[in-house]
Amino acid sequence: MSSAKPLVLYTGRTPNGFKVSTFLEELKLAYGGPDYEVFPIDISTNVQKEPWFIALNPNGRIPTLTDRSRDNFNVFETAAILLYLQKYFDKNNIFAFDQDKEANDYSEMLQWIFFAHGGVGPMQGQANHFTFVKDDIPYAKNRYVEETKRLYGVMEIRLSAGRDYLAGPGRGKLSLADLNVYPWVRIHHFSVCKTLDEWPNLKAWTERLAARPGVQAGLEVPPDGWNKKS
Amino acid sequence: MSSAKPLVLYTGRTPNGFKVSTFLEELKLAYGGPDYEVFPIDISTNVQKEPWFIALNPNGRIPTLTDRSRDNFNVFETAAILLYLQKYFDKNNIFAFDQDKEANDYSEMLQWIFFAHGGVGPMQGQANHFTFVKDDIPYAKNRYVEETKRLYGVMEIRLSAGRDYLAGPGRGKLSLADLNVYPWVRIHHFSVCKTLDEWPNLKAWTERLAARPGVQAGLEVPPDGWNKKS
Repeated sequence: MSSAKPLVLYTGRTPNGFKVSTFLEELKLAYGGPDYEVFPIDISTNVQKEPWFIALNPNGRIPTLTDRSRDNFNVFETAAILLYLQKYFDKNNIFAFDQDKEANDYSEMLQWIFFAHGGVGPMQGQANHFTFVKDDIPYAKNRYVEETKRLYGVMEIRLSAGRDYLAGPGRGKLSLADLNVYPWVRIHHFSVCKTLDEWPNLKAWTERLAARPGVQAGLEVPPDGWNKKS
Repeated sequence: MSSAKPLVLYTGRTPNGFKVSTFLEELKLAYGGPDYEVFPIDISTNVQKEPWFIALNPNGRIPTLTDRSRDNFNVFETAAILLYLQKYFDKNNIFAFDQDKEANDYSEMLQWIFFAHGGVGPMQGQANHFTFVKDDIPYAKNRYVEETKRLYGVMEIRLSAGRDYLAGPGRGKLSLADLNVYPWVRIHHFSVCKTLDEWPNLKAWTERLAARPGVQAGLEVPPDGWNKKS
């Protein structure tokens, strides 16, 4: 409340939360900002379903962003937050592409963002559910594990065509397309598969992402155990 | 092959297919074009998993777009196709918003597009699966039916705030946000609920969409029974 930081990020230690925190930390390294306040949400307490949170995000999920610098404008849905932040804080298109001069690259970035948002995220999320929450329905678990593996295979097709990153000319350029899906792929071992050996180019891509200091910093937002210290 | 139409839409009679065909028909009514060739895909034959199709769309799903007028550029993922078409064929922003002058409206449109792309679509799709394909797992069916109902409730929150459409100032303006989710909500009776009476503003919104000639035309692309005539 007393903070003057321009952004407030309501988030937790989930793949969707890490998409935004890794991007914000990458922006900090590239531009020195924006500064943001972290409002950690413990989704196990369902605080995100309380009326004050529903007023910020009618879907009652994290992450959610409030931009104090733009009249407290609220943004929900992870990928919409990434595109919003990119518009205002990545003026040099370091993490995206010029919508006119690099229109095809921009479209391909969006295509892979939507691929992850409608595919990898929801399907791997269901695989997690039928592994950790309700583990006695083999049909459902298998359905989502196999579909997530198929989606990893789609990324492998893309990356095996001489690419380091999902979008961009030539070998590609790290962009929102990558940051938007990495936090899911990195936890493949939770419920999908022990290793990524089946998809060597995808595996190399995860190692590329994991080596980035910005990504590493974002994976500590909020820090592990924050909700156990209070 | 002999056609000179600028666009080719690989599609079928599915909610995702109808998102693009309804937008293309709305564009035709508003602008007189673009003209597009329909390449109907019978997904029950898995033709969309054949190598020639994977070359167009590595995810092997419909709809997929090829833009002959831009060097056969391919676009996959429904919402990415909508945003692509809007950029090139909706120059007056009839179905969207100016990204700079109406930046908040544009962001809100994207937020609701992602909400549908990661929520309503995947979850209602799973409800359909556990109703029509594998109907003997009550837990799974109930999980996806209830989650879809919850998502309808989120749309009701938005629309009940004096709105006719999901995005735009005041009562809102018909935009991609609406066209991107209507084809799912309209088939609520397949597996989710018999009526939308529980969400009166959402119900009124569906009636508003259903009354549009462009939407009606798009729901006939490809025409019912096309794959039974050949």
